[in-house]
Amino acid sequence: MLKGKFITFEGGECTGKTTIINEIAKKLTSLGFDVIITREPGGIDIAEQIREIILNPKNTKMVPETEALLYAASRMQHLKEKVIPALEAGKIVLCDRYLDSSLVYQGYARNLGVKSILEINHFATMYMPDLTIFIDVKPEIALGRLNSRKEKVDRLDSEGLLFHQKVYNGYLEVAKMYKNRIKSVDGNNSLEDVTLACYKLVEEELK
Amino acid sequence: MLKGKFITFEGGECTGKTTIINEIAKKLTSLGFDVIITREPGGIDIAEQIREIILNPKNTKMVPETEALLYAASRMQHLKEKVIPALEAGKIVLCDRYLDSSLVYQGYARNLGVKSILEINHFATMYMPDLTIFIDVKPEIALGRLNSRKEKVDRLDSEGLLFHQKVYNGYLEVAKMYKNRIKSVDGNNSLEDVTLACYKLVEEELK
Repeated sequence: MLKGKFITFEGGECTGKTTIINEIAKKLTSLGFDVIITREPGGIDIAEQIREIILNPKNTKMVPETEALLYAASRMQHLKEKVIPALEAGKIVLCDRYLDSSLVYQGYARNLGVKSILEINHFATMYMPDLTIFIDVKPEIALGRLNSRKEKVDRLDSEGLLFHQKVYNGYLEVAKMYKNRIKSVDGNNSLEDVTLACYKLVEEELK
Repeated sequence: MLKGKFITFEGGECTGKTTIINEIAKKLTSLGFDVIITREPGGIDIAEQIREIILNPKNTKMVPETEALLYAASRMQHLKEKVIPALEAGKIVLCDRYLDSSLVYQGYARNLGVKSILEINHFATMYMPDLTIFIDVKPEIALGRLNSRKEKVDRLDSEGLLFHQKVYNGYLEVAKMYKNRIKSVDGNNSLEDVTLACYKLVEEELK
């Protein structure tokens, strides 16, 4: 058993995850907890190299199965090189997206199937988070927030409502599959309220 | 169902696979068959990029799980971009090593377990070969052949008898698991005899 706590945050685009994680880390640190914030590939050199292949716009022939396996490979390196050592050292690891994102984006939204994604993430499923917080924002609200941004940031930002709806439905399914681990927070409220609700769940987990 | 035939060749180091495959291809081509010879990453650009990460000597921190996933990713790209289109076009695909090599080298010899390797190769297991020929050369004979080479070619060539024995035992186990698909050929005889025995198995498969 690892001494620390592995807490992941999930949700579609524009759910405020980054701000929320930063706020929670600040609060926990001020209380004396040893906290690290991360997200895949997390500055891990090998994981970054893998991510470069996935994101290289020249790789137009990449099949979805290869992409899913590369995400899994990047995840394992990040997990074993960064997350597990931090947990062994007793730290609280707050991770922006993890396995559930692959289940939702590649399993549901890209139609590879959840079972396939779980199988190729065989090794990662041995290190499931202690707690996962799903920030539940209705897709039309998320898309409205996204459209009010000045610039589109990446490829996913150009997807339409249908894609965001598929992602949202995927999260609802995955949350049902892992109802002991995944706790939902209503993300349609103000960012302050959502942050507080998330913090309460983290506090509960650390009791 | 794909129209062509997918035939893979397996075995440890110095089992003569490359020569044997070339001879069989020559013979089949002279009989009018449309044959391609390949091996992962098979000149497929994305698969080559993945292989570069695996082989980069700077990547000393790579964990075995990441390596296994990268092999699986490279395999899928090679399979879908090269092997499957050839099979759809009715060709005979002779492939030097495939999934069984991962089962043996990473599952057995590197101790990740066969079940794990099968799971991460979830997509590839949907495209199992029509026939796999295991060229059975006793590890002490293979090692003797290897040592008589002027130069060591790659990292695997520097492994000792224990590693070669683990690989050999792994092949025997995998051949038992898939006895309908994997046919063994005694590879301790002369290369001419071994080639002939392999060719007979291919002929049988093409009947």
